Amino acid sequence: VINAGKSQHNEDQACCEVVFVERRPSPRGRLPSREGGGELDGGFYFHYWALFDGHAGSGAAVMASKRLHLHICEQLRDLVDILQDPSPPPICLPHEARASPAEPSQVPLAEDDEEVPNNAVPRFHLEKEVSHESLVIGAIENAFKHMDDQIEREWASQRLSGGCCALAAVYLMGKFYVANAGEAIIIRNGEIIPMSREFTPETERQRLQFLAFLRPELLGKEFTHLEFPRRIQPKELGKKMLYRDQNMNGWAYKKIEEDDLKFPLIYGEGKKARVMATIGVTRGLGDHDLRVFSSNIQIKPFLSCFPEVKVYDLTQYEHCPDDVLVLGTDGLWDVTNDKEVAGVVMEVLTSYEPNDPCRYTMVAQELVVRSRGVLKERGWRLANDKLGSGDDISVFVIPL
Amino acid sequence: VINAGKSQHNEDQACCEVVFVERRPSPRGRLPSREGGGELDGGFYFHYWALFDGHAGSGAAVMASKRLHLHICEQLRDLVDILQDPSPPPICLPHEARASPAEPSQVPLAEDDEEVPNNAVPRFHLEKEVSHESLVIGAIENAFKHMDDQIEREWASQRLSGGCCALAAVYLMGKFYVANAGEAIIIRNGEIIPMSREFTPETERQRLQFLAFLRPELLGKEFTHLEFPRRIQPKELGKKMLYRDQNMNGWAYKKIEEDDLKFPLIYGEGKKARVMATIGVTRGLGDHDLRVFSSNIQIKPFLSCFPEVKVYDLTQYEHCPDDVLVLGTDGLWDVTNDKEVAGVVMEVLTSYEPNDPCRYTMVAQELVVRSRGVLKERGWRLANDKLGSGDDISVFVIPL
Repeated sequence: VINAGKSQHNEDQACCEVVFVERRPSPRGRLPSREGGGELDGGFYFHYWALFDGHAGSGAAVMASKRLHLHICEQLRDLVDILQDPSPPPICLPHEARASPAEPSQVPLAEDDEEVPNNAVPRFHLEKEVSHESLVIGAIENAFKHMDDQIEREWASQRLSGGCCALAAVYLMGKFYVANAGEAIIIRNGEIIPMSREFTPETERQRLQFLAFLRPELLGKEFTHLEFPRRIQPKELGKKMLYRDQNMNGWAYKKIEEDDLKFPLIYGEGKKARVMATIGVTRGLGDHDLRVFSSNIQIKPFLSCFPEVKVYDLTQYEHCPDDVLVLGTDGLWDVTNDKEVAGVVMEVLTSYEPNDPCRYTMVAQELVVRSRGVLKERGWRLANDKLGSGDDISVFVIPL
Repeated sequence: VINAGKSQHNEDQACCEVVFVERRPSPRGRLPSREGGGELDGGFYFHYWALFDGHAGSGAAVMASKRLHLHICEQLRDLVDILQDPSPPPICLPHEARASPAEPSQVPLAEDDEEVPNNAVPRFHLEKEVSHESLVIGAIENAFKHMDDQIEREWASQRLSGGCCALAAVYLMGKFYVANAGEAIIIRNGEIIPMSREFTPETERQRLQFLAFLRPELLGKEFTHLEFPRRIQPKELGKKMLYRDQNMNGWAYKKIEEDDLKFPLIYGEGKKARVMATIGVTRGLGDHDLRVFSSNIQIKPFLSCFPEVKVYDLTQYEHCPDDVLVLGTDGLWDVTNDKEVAGVVMEVLTSYEPNDPCRYTMVAQELVVRSRGVLKERGWRLANDKLGSGDDISVFVIPL
């Protein structure tokens, strides 16, 4: 829902797809050992849901909603055979291009053809075993990076503006992979299982301070990497003030010096915390053009486009028709907490037949409506008379 | 116990003290609002236990065991009044030195004397509230830093060698502060409560890779910040190999380039994981002289002397005579896990009267003896016939 007349356009964007990942054609055809994989021999499907919560325009959110799943698909294409083979993934793959001119001493083709990836090279005393699951996580992580790179190219050529938080759920081979910057929960048998972790200037303080400490030039001459509990006044020079640097979780006093009068890299608390007084989110796509107000200092180096990927293995649990995965943008979570969401899920689902396919849509709709509230004289109000969300609100309710 | 003839000297060191933190004399005497604090008006006591697990010599461990509590005391001295005052800590303290020549426009002394720290300066729209607890954490963190600096000075002048992991428990005003690099658990009513988190090249991989990525010169020309699941052979150039960089938790394939043939910054698994093939711990004191074997590359920039401090509030729970905090060095934890430790604690404590003060010492002794094992033909063996610890073993068992 486009909310509260904040904008003409919805900065939230969404996407829901079933994507077929087709095996990449090999120059030599498929490896012999990979044949006979059954009906999905040419590839596999994944199910995909994603929400994009845009800011400073909808450009990045619109583009990501149309492209991110294609980047995930592209990353997975190299893994079609590997993920369908129950044996551990090969650590090293054979050459892609045969007989490249850079390798005159290459072994003859005939011998090379018998190479089985996992056994081809002598094992050293150490070889880490890498799981299939962590390959999917790596594919999703790199897909986000490629998505961010594409937005950058588009921004450079088309002036595509803004940035977005992305929350994507990929269902593949029995497991949900939830890549977050955004909030997601699973409700199973009434129990709430968090599928995301919050990324804010506060939760990522030490990473950002560490970067600024190592690369002070990124702060221009206007910011300090130290955190102070409030702004310092010039007349307080020489007094002792509480601070913490990138190594500390606790606080200590330091004597205020000239440099400490600069604005802190991280400033503010909770929803109001900002990086260089500019942005309140630290993970997401886009924002390549974002600069500190009336300055040339770039914000992008402090933002990460890499998501944290959490895995939920559906095959490990029994699920009933009331068990769901809920994805939502800030418009939902800012005014409705986990427990309230779980309550609405239960309430609405029990009022429909378990086999009615509409019941999940009705939950999503109810969550949106309740978070928006009702327009009264004093603005949009929730049932408890608190202010409704002034943000765009998007919700997916996915039966497990 | 000096174990298995590994060394003539015990590289484990320990310290146990009751330390009085005396208020620092103020040039103007105490602030009027702080008077009447009762019997501890001149300061307060803390109880202190610490274990230091040395490597490459016992120099750093010996020095830290004699000095760390004094550094903690020194850091706390500025906080004597503040910690005893139940109101929130002042964010800014008045000038220490009055009428410094750098501040000609200073307000008259009479007016300044009435300054009450927390109210003296106008509040801005934001002011973070900082807890007493986080001041103690900050004091301990900075004490570790000062300890490390002192070891560095000593190393430069006296050739004090080696490094150590430090595990310190401070009991202050009803709370235990456990500063770890080392393992500690609380056993309460048979339940195990971890009071430490493991710091290894593997758990700290992303921090180390991030540093190496931003400061590639720290790697010399011999290491790469990328992680690979095994060493790469020169003849594998151009093949695709699993890797992960500082942004990834998953794994992906990349084409092997010349640079990837360098040795990985983090290499090995579990107990065998090493930073630049040299050291298996990433947090601790000392090691200022540590270099990669037969090279000039320094390890110290990758090590952190800052501990993680966990807090346990004794006043929040009821405790019985069998509830204890167990501190141990690797010699204990390498061969005896949490559950086995909890089992020994229960077993030994129940065999003594609850008011027998020896019973905790007997637990510690039993834990050491069991972890060492018995000398048989095939070396030191545990009760389960596995190899006993070849390391020094130290244990504190502290009744809660």
